[in-house]
Amino acid sequence: MEKIIRKGIAFNPEELKQFDSLTKRKGYKNRSEAIRDIVRNELIREEKENPEAEMIATLTIIYDHHKHYVQEELTQIQHCHPNLIRSSLHIHINHDNCLEVIILDGKVKNIKKLADEIIAAKGVKNGKLVMTSN
Amino acid sequence: MEKIIRKGIAFNPEELKQFDSLTKRKGYKNRSEAIRDIVRNELIREEKENPEAEMIATLTIIYDHHKHYVQEELTQIQHCHPNLIRSSLHIHINHDNCLEVIILDGKVKNIKKLADEIIAAKGVKNGKLVMTSN
Amino acid sequence: MEKIIRKGIAFNPEELKQFDSLTKRKGYKNRSEAIRDIVRNELIREEKENPEAEMIATLTIIYDHHKHYVQEELTQIQHCHPNLIRSSLHIHINHDNCLEVIILDGKVKNIKKLADEIIAAKGVKNGKLVMTSN
Amino acid sequence: MEKIIRKGIAFNPEELKQFDSLTKRKGYKNRSEAIRDIVRNELIREEKENPEAEMIATLTIIYDHHKHYVQEELTQIQHCHPNLIRSSLHIHINHDNCLEVIILDGKVKNIKKLADEIIAAKGVKNGKLVMTSN
Repeated sequence: MEKIIRKGIAFNPEELKQFDSLTKRKGYKNRSEAIRDIVRNELIREEKENPEAEMIATLTIIYDHHKHYVQEELTQIQHCHPNLIRSSLHIHINHDNCLEVIILDGKVKNIKKLADEIIAAKGVKNGKLVMTSN
Repeated sequence: MEKIIRKGIAFNPEELKQFDSLTKRKGYKNRSEAIRDIVRNELIREEKENPEAEMIATLTIIYDHHKHYVQEELTQIQHCHPNLIRSSLHIHINHDNCLEVIILDGKVKNIKKLADEIIAAKGVKNGKLVMTSN
Repeated sequence: MEKIIRKGIAFNPEELKQFDSLTKRKGYKNRSEAIRDIVRNELIREEKENPEAEMIATLTIIYDHHKHYVQEELTQIQHCHPNLIRSSLHIHINHDNCLEVIILDGKVKNIKKLADEIIAAKGVKNGKLVMTSN
Repeated sequence: MEKIIRKGIAFNPEELKQFDSLTKRKGYKNRSEAIRDIVRNELIREEKENPEAEMIATLTIIYDHHKHYVQEELTQIQHCHPNLIRSSLHIHINHDNCLEVIILDGKVKNIKKLADEIIAAKGVKNGKLVMTSN
């Protein structure tokens, strides 16, 4: 079970009221849950600025599978980095387009480099990378 | 096959040189590929401001599977929105943490609401939502 | 003087240690100051999604003053919205470029519309808008 | 006068139509103006990842001038970095709050460090940093 420690935090009353209303709107069970989430986000924001930090990332790409060799190229790029790629998920969105989600696990600098390479591949129409911390 | 039309675009020579160097560094085959990618990004950025727009989204969450009922709650939330959720991918990252990637497909406002609900669930430590266009 | 109320917040010990180290690195005097800042940021992030919310914004633009009529056009646009613009600051950066910072005060939707118009003006090379709460 | 060179860019017809409609909505005179703006944004996004790059930045802060010593502290921090700070603009927003916009000019790493220090100062309620290129 996750251990917790309780700390007294000083809030401005007006801001606390607004924050409580926001956390209720977002569906949090209590204030501590919400505070922990935004603290974690802050830590992740900082961590991903460090090229050497180890992170987990999700790369979401949309590509047109009719484009010549796009799947071959994507497969080949991914096979060149077996240590960085954990898994991937493929969905047929419509007649032309596929969505692929690739889970990357490694140093920030290596994740970014591989994501750039995949997004730049011919046929890839859009790519979005998000990082999180394990 | 994707049709294309060619248009003359006026560039500032110094900026074009910098942009060409950036696109080479990122691995693009040519300038048009790179321009198309940033134009698409701009369209997506605009589209996701519109609550009624139809988009595809990837929600990446990290959660501690030891937390009581977290998986039951996540499963239950997802089953309440079968039309919004296309698929999901699950990875065991380490002893405590799981990563789940959920593919959402629907109106921006509904995607955001569901993502908020999932991220706020007890046990979910971090959540990141990205949207793309089909 | 600003009133405060103290609330007990439950933290994960490992994350609290990381957060304390981050707040020290960023120069905060204590944990409460840092928490209050990220809570406020969260409130602002939410608020600026609401087109009807009243906010303060800073628009930073770079423009080439050699471009024909750029200053006339910028002045004219600004004079059409006296209620939205509070003040502006002008700096000569180098031989060609000027930086102008325009302080906007009003509804989110009106701020965005005016910022778009100014950024799109011929001669304006880059524009960045940030919003904050009063 | 700014020199330009014209290059043929291949677009997807459907995306070009959407982009033309977006640029019209945003108020651009023509397609080239809009493309140049998003290309510049892309260059700036890349540049600000480089700690050694020289940039211009605008730091917008809100602070409560009733807080003890806040103005003294802000003045003191700023006087310690005369080479980084180009100018500043001060506005009295309401009874309690002041807005200050500080123009910074220097290496990305130095700009970020000074901005962190100012935002962390007691009494500063919110701070937003944006970077642009000269």
